[in-house]
Amino acid sequence: MIDLLLVGIGAGNPKHLTLEAIEALNSADVILIPRKGPGKDDLAELRRVICRDYLTNGGPPQHEFDLPVRDPATPDYVQRVNDWHDAIATAWQDAITSQVGSSGRVAFLVWGDPSLYDSTLRIAERVQSKLALRLTVIPGITSVQALTAGHTIPLNTLAAPVTITTGRKLRDFGWPPETQTLVVMLDAGGAFEVLAKDDYDIWWSAFAGMPQEIRIAGPLSEVQDHILETRAKARADHGWIMDVYLIRKRDT
Amino acid sequence: MIDLLLVGIGAGNPKHLTLEAIEALNSADVILIPRKGPGKDDLAELRRVICRDYLTNGGPPQHEFDLPVRDPATPDYVQRVNDWHDAIATAWQDAITSQVGSSGRVAFLVWGDPSLYDSTLRIAERVQSKLALRLTVIPGITSVQALTAGHTIPLNTLAAPVTITTGRKLRDFGWPPETQTLVVMLDAGGAFEVLAKDDYDIWWSAFAGMPQEIRIAGPLSEVQDHILETRAKARADHGWIMDVYLIRKRDT
Ligand SMILES: C[S@@+](CC[C@H](N)C(=O)[O-])C[C@H]1O[C@@H](n2cnc3c(N)ncnc32)[C@H](O)[C@@H]1O
Ligand SMILES: C[S@@+](CC[C@H](N)C(=O)[O-])C[C@H]1O[C@@H](n2cnc3c(N)ncnc32)[C@H](O)[C@@H]1O
Repeated sequence: MIDLLLVGIGAGNPKHLTLEAIEALNSADVILIPRKGPGKDDLAELRRVICRDYLTNGGPPQHEFDLPVRDPATPDYVQRVNDWHDAIATAWQDAITSQVGSSGRVAFLVWGDPSLYDSTLRIAERVQSKLALRLTVIPGITSVQALTAGHTIPLNTLAAPVTITTGRKLRDFGWPPETQTLVVMLDAGGAFEVLAKDDYDIWWSAFAGMPQEIRIAGPLSEVQDHILETRAKARADHGWIMDVYLIRKRDT
Repeated sequence: MIDLLLVGIGAGNPKHLTLEAIEALNSADVILIPRKGPGKDDLAELRRVICRDYLTNGGPPQHEFDLPVRDPATPDYVQRVNDWHDAIATAWQDAITSQVGSSGRVAFLVWGDPSLYDSTLRIAERVQSKLALRLTVIPGITSVQALTAGHTIPLNTLAAPVTITTGRKLRDFGWPPETQTLVVMLDAGGAFEVLAKDDYDIWWSAFAGMPQEIRIAGPLSEVQDHILETRAKARADHGWIMDVYLIRKRDT
């Protein structure tokens, strides 16, 4: 039997690591590291720091392996992602078998929490249909919690619901009905531009929880341009960016 | 200046503690412990374990103080809660001043993450309007992450939104429009009974992440009664219960 551990490591701050995550990582026979291609490994530096400074003796052995790339020829988005996940599952299966054969403890590090806008669990499920494996998920601090902690704001208003969505959905479908609080992730930039600026307040964070964290908050009408400029500049300066924001609709 | 630290400690498993939370708690001059009245302190045992087993030398001094109770005479729910939070803020202010005067580091332990259905931040904001204090929030693992980790399921379906709500909202307003995934917290029991059973799947956890964790998952039509019976029995056995669930609407 193979034990497959999907370990949430938090949203970029190594001190987001939980005791449970540290224990799980230390217990692994091998940490598998999928290589997404040059310049695509946001996790590389964080992983190095975690293993060096927070695991016992630099952590278990690490094994890197290459991931297939998405086939841009498949027109439908969901189909394209599903095909790609199938191909990734095969790469995982080969890597797992090459490292531990049919029994052992294999860990993957997952940015944030493994449940939130992350493909790891979907891929693990596919692998599970081919290999006998026991799946364990270790929760991690999400970027949503890093956002609200940084701004010292509650996620929900009193006893009210919250919706978490993607930049693409906000851009394509606008403000969801009967929603007061919306958290937006995976935005390629400025999806909030589709909103009527006067009705909303925004709390925006880039690199939430990390040393380079940037926070901007205020009425959307007043800070929208400042966010877009800051985002473009930070992206150029650092070569990459991760941002997340919370928007609340004002009582009207 | 007073440093007020609101420290998320996870959803019941002491190993949900992050390194950041441990550091913050160890750095405090005093940990303040609001007493809600007999039998209402779910946190008591977890707090004891955390201080004894995870903080340096049993942690900083702890100071307990009594909270006022809600005035049942105020008919409006939101007004009642707001009045109550004002009264709590005064009790906090007195406790803080009695312990550190006008400067020092004061920590509160918060179940799960301080941003999620928790009044601590709202109360801290009220105190901030009366005392000079710097507010720091340390994120913690939420019960939502403990739920999805225990069931090894993703929160969202591929690139799709998720709404988090309360049992009361689900019971009073039914399934929110255009929603595929709904997480329900603070349910006094069985709010999902308002749904058309055949259209939904449910993943339910009581005491998620804790030794007494109970998980039930399946089509709502098949497991609904089992959940209600299990919940009633667990509540009777333990004297209290905390449960959370995720419901997905099937493609129709
Ligand atoms: C593929 S998703 C992974 C989310 C992750 N599993 C989590 O729990 O936060 C990547 C998105 O998460 C958000 N994100 C992750 N880390 C972030 C950070 N440190 N600061 C701001 N946004 C972040 C951004 O919206 C980014 O587009
Ligand atoms: C006042 S809210 C606090 C939520 C907390 N701040 C969090 O981050 O999870 C209490 C509700 O959280 C959920 N909850 C908290 N801990 C839980 C646990 N260990 N298992 C199941 N549900 C839990 C239940 O729905 C409960 O009614």
